[in-house]
Formats: sequence, C-alpha cells, structure tokens
Amino acid sequence: MAGEKSRILIIGGTGYLGKFVVGASARSGHPTFALVRNTAPSDPAKAQLLETFKNSGVTILKGDLNDHGSLVEAIKQVDVVISTVGPPQAIEQLKIIAAIKEVGTIKRFLPSEFGLDVDRIHKVEPATSVFQLKAQIRRVIEAEGIPYTIVCSNCFAGYFLPTLAQPEPPKDKVVILGDGNPKAIFVCEEDIAAYTIKAVDDPRTLNKILYVQPPANIYSFNELVSLWERKTGKTLEKIYLPEEEVLKKIQESPFPFNILLAVNYLVFVKGDTANIEIEPSIGVDASELYPDVKYTSVQEYLNRVIQ
Amino acid sequence: MAGEKSRILIIGGTGYLGKFVVGASARSGHPTFALVRNTAPSDPAKAQLLETFKNSGVTILKGDLNDHGSLVEAIKQVDVVISTVGPPQAIEQLKIIAAIKEVGTIKRFLPSEFGLDVDRIHKVEPATSVFQLKAQIRRVIEAEGIPYTIVCSNCFAGYFLPTLAQPEPPKDKVVILGDGNPKAIFVCEEDIAAYTIKAVDDPRTLNKILYVQPPANIYSFNELVSLWERKTGKTLEKIYLPEEEVLKKIQESPFPFNILLAVNYLVFVKGDTANIEIEPSIGVDASELYPDVKYTSVQEYLNRVIQ
Repeated sequence: MAGEKSRILIIGGTGYLGKFVVGASARSGHPTFALVRNTAPSDPAKAQLLETFKNSGVTILKGDLNDHGSLVEAIKQVDVVISTVGPPQAIEQLKIIAAIKEVGTIKRFLPSEFGLDVDRIHKVEPATSVFQLKAQIRRVIEAEGIPYTIVCSNCFAGYFLPTLAQPEPPKDKVVILGDGNPKAIFVCEEDIAAYTIKAVDDPRTLNKILYVQPPANIYSFNELVSLWERKTGKTLEKIYLPEEEVLKKIQESPFPFNILLAVNYLVFVKGDTANIEIEPSIGVDASELYPDVKYTSVQEYLNRVIQ
Repeated sequence: MAGEKSRILIIGGTGYLGKFVVGASARSGHPTFALVRNTAPSDPAKAQLLETFKNSGVTILKGDLNDHGSLVEAIKQVDVVISTVGPPQAIEQLKIIAAIKEVGTIKRFLPSEFGLDVDRIHKVEPATSVFQLKAQIRRVIEAEGIPYTIVCSNCFAGYFLPTLAQPEPPKDKVVILGDGNPKAIFVCEEDIAAYTIKAVDDPRTLNKILYVQPPANIYSFNELVSLWERKTGKTLEKIYLPEEEVLKKIQESPFPFNILLAVNYLVFVKGDTANIEIEPSIGVDASELYPDVKYTSVQEYLNRVIQ
C-alpha cells in the first residue's frame, strides 16, 4: 500500500465537527466512508448533508454503535477509523474499540477528542466528569495496543469567536472570566479537519498526541477583546468576573450551562489550552509537522464574523 | 417504621437540582444524607453549600460513584435513594443500582430523571442519544425489580423563564421555534423538590411515573411571550423559526448548543411536555396527589425575574 492513501471511516460524520472531517478526507483523496444511522433521514438538513457527502465521492454506510455487526462490516472496509461522536456518546466508543479489535487490521484509530488535553488540565466539575470519559477511552486504547492518534485541537473557533464566548455577540459590554490574561488557542473547524487528515498516515503521529496550536491563533481574552474593539471601532465595557464568582456561577447553573462555563473556566481562567508544554515522547505540534496547511488566523476569522 | 419518615440519601446533592432536593428533604423532617466526593472542597461556592446542608441537619457522607464500598456504606444507612446526578453521569447510575442490589433493603429509588418522559417523546439527535441513557437506566431498574419512582418534572422554570429560552432576556425581539402554539409545562425547582420528597413514602407513586404538571404552569410559547410583553409593557418583534430551520440549526450547532436546541425543539415544536396523556397503570399526576403543595405559578415566577 506504499504511496496509497489509506481508506478512512468516519463515525459521527454528520455531527458538528464530523462533517468537516468527512469533507477534508474526501478532498485529500482518501477513499472516505461515513457511518450513519439513517441513510434516508426525514430531517431535510441531514438529508442535504448526506447528499453533499455523496457528491464528494463519500461512501455512506448504514450502521450504529449499538449494532456490532454493522460496525465490524464498516471497519473491515478501511484502514483508519476516525470517531467524531459527540460528548454524550464518548463512552460508547468502547463499542468501536471492541469492533476494531475484532477486525484486527486497523492501522490508526483517532477517538473523538478534538479539544483540551484531558490528561493535563485542572479539575472542575462538571467538566472533569465529562473529560474523564475521554480519558477512560484513552486508557482502553493504550491497554488494547490499538495504534492511535489523539488530536488536541483546543478551542473550536466557531464556538468561541463569533460571540467572544458571550451569549450573543457583544455590543456594549463583555463579561471576562478571571483577569483575562491567560492565553488560549482557537482553531477553525476546517483547519482541525485538515490537520487531522494529514496525521492519519503519518508515522510521526503514531501513538502520539497531535497538538493543534497555530502560532497566529494564541490570544488572551483581553487581547481578543482589544481586537474586537479595533475591528468594530467600538469600546466595550469590561466586566471582570473573579475566579470565585465563576466557580459560584458554575455551581448555580443547570446542565449544560454548567459544563460550558466550566470549560470556559479551564480555558480562560486556568489557561489550560496554551499552558501545555509539549512533551516530545508523547506529543507533536501540528503546525511544525504541517507548515503547508494555510490555516485561518484569529484575525481573519474575526474579519469574517464581524459585519 | 409506620409513621416514621424514611431516611433519604441524595447522590448528586450539590448539583443544580440536587441542592433543592436536599433542602426539601431536610425541611420535611426526613433524616437526610448527602453523598459528596469532597467533604472539604477548595471551591468556596461548594464549601458554602455544604455548610448550608450541615446547618439544616443534613449528614454529609464522603463517597463516589466509582468507590463501590462508599456507595454501599451510604446506602446501608437509608431507606430511600434519590439520584440527582447530571446528564454526563446518567449511565454511571448503573453503579448506584449495583450498590442498591447489594444492600437489598432500599424501599424506593428515584433515578436522576426530572425532565421529559424519555419513553414518550419524539426522536431528534443529539437529544435522543442523551435521553436513551435515562431510558436505559429505567430498563435496568425494572429488570432488577428495584422499587422506584420516576419524576417527570418537565421544564425547569429557572432554565427557561428568566430569558424566555433566549440567550439573554429579550429586550426588542424574541426567536420562537416553530409556530409557538404547542403547550409546554414549567415547574419551579423548589416545587420539583417538594413533590419529589412527597412521593418517596407514598404507596401511590410506587413503581410509577410522577408527572409534575401544575395546571397554572402550562403555556404555549406565544402565550409566554404575551405574558412577558404585558409584564414589561413592551412589544417584542417575533421571529418565527420554521421546524425545518430549527432542525438545520441543531445540525449546525456544536455541543452542547445542539442538545439545548434539540430539547427546545421537543418542548416547543413537538409539545413533548404537555402532550403526554397520563396512562393510569404507569403514571400519576403530582398536582392531584399533592394539592397542598403551594407551587409557584409561571405568572409569579415571571414577576420575580422581570425587573
């Protein structure tokens, strides 16, 4: 198979990040397969997405995490499995692992990570409970000896930047968790997908964490606010929420706002995306490995979202 | 034990709903126990909450779902177990069930439900995947023959009413999912807790679903908007989002916004709280059983949140 592009199965391909991964895989010439529960969905948005997949040459396979046979059949057809299932299904990836073991020929498994390095972050509930599920999947992959790559892609740009992590894009004021000084890393979803697909056949990412931290995309919250102000030409009132107040707000908020807030606390108060020192024995830097990826910078992204 | 109030253990008692359940249990004279992971938390908000518990006579027990021994020891001290763990830990309630089976003396288990009737709602991802975890816990409880009560308390008032299910309280405009006509049910968190505690020793709720649907709290979204307008004296621009658009938005949103939107879709477009016909063989109506609970009406709640 030297020189050939591996065949890739994406599980969770119709999800928020998954559709970008499916697109990147198909565009880069990998024979691409997407496992979906319903190949003829009544939901028009989902139907349209599947149509887009097919037009890009993606093979749609019908299957379900709860249908072991369908998983095994799908996995038999490929070399690489990428899971992009959402957090509610994190622990169900044990079923993917079981099928990968049974098939026995998978060269790389990328579990659904695409966020913070869950082994190296501060503790705060309920984020800790959510992240522990991802950590548990890492431990099982390691124990089973399945070849893997963990993609730590830090903050989705499309999640944080259009509103500056506020309920709505700030017009007059902005709430800043903590003192706004820790740096954070933002990555455009298309770029996360591009780096991910680059990694699947790369021996340098085998059994490693791929940290996605484009140099032009590392900003403190205060710096983001300044950028926003410059681009809109409008000064915002800054309301700083001390760490203790943030913890109180997490405590008082219902699901899923408590998870959202707890993640924002880790990112903006504790600096848990940018404060990772890459340990070469376990991690590699995506920007160093793939300097040819022309990623979207935070500046460009803000130009796009600020009208 | 006739005439005596059962001893109640709450697991998840420091959570959003749990703290109200702990409070209601203590106030109504039940010997009340709260299982917490950390009895001396560094988080000041959590420390203060535990102090409040102790001042109400609540016994704090140190324990963890992942520490089977601690669960068994805690469960041995009580008659009733109420779980209020959050959605990320829904499936981990299997560990509570295992401990309840081992102890063998629990008279009633109330799993962490406190929402829609997950066996009787429309399907829409990713809500379906989340709700399936609750349904799975129901099936295991039934299969194990553990005496139970399922509390379907519909929409948390504190979750939907302060902002009318918008990112921020509406000032000029309001986005309405669907046509705004299906009815929905809103219940104040304190009242959910009060009904729950009433149910634990009640033979009429044994192995039944307790539907919390206070008659004064059933409103369509359009009616809620009218109420809001009357109370603020300000007319809002109404932006109706057709069902197809809502589905598209769910599809395009990242976790956990996709879950939030999908739940709002079920509640406001599909009417999945108010359209339940109570089947007497499986369900009972909390307002009928406990007319003495002076619940907070939607009108009163809005008076409280609209300044």
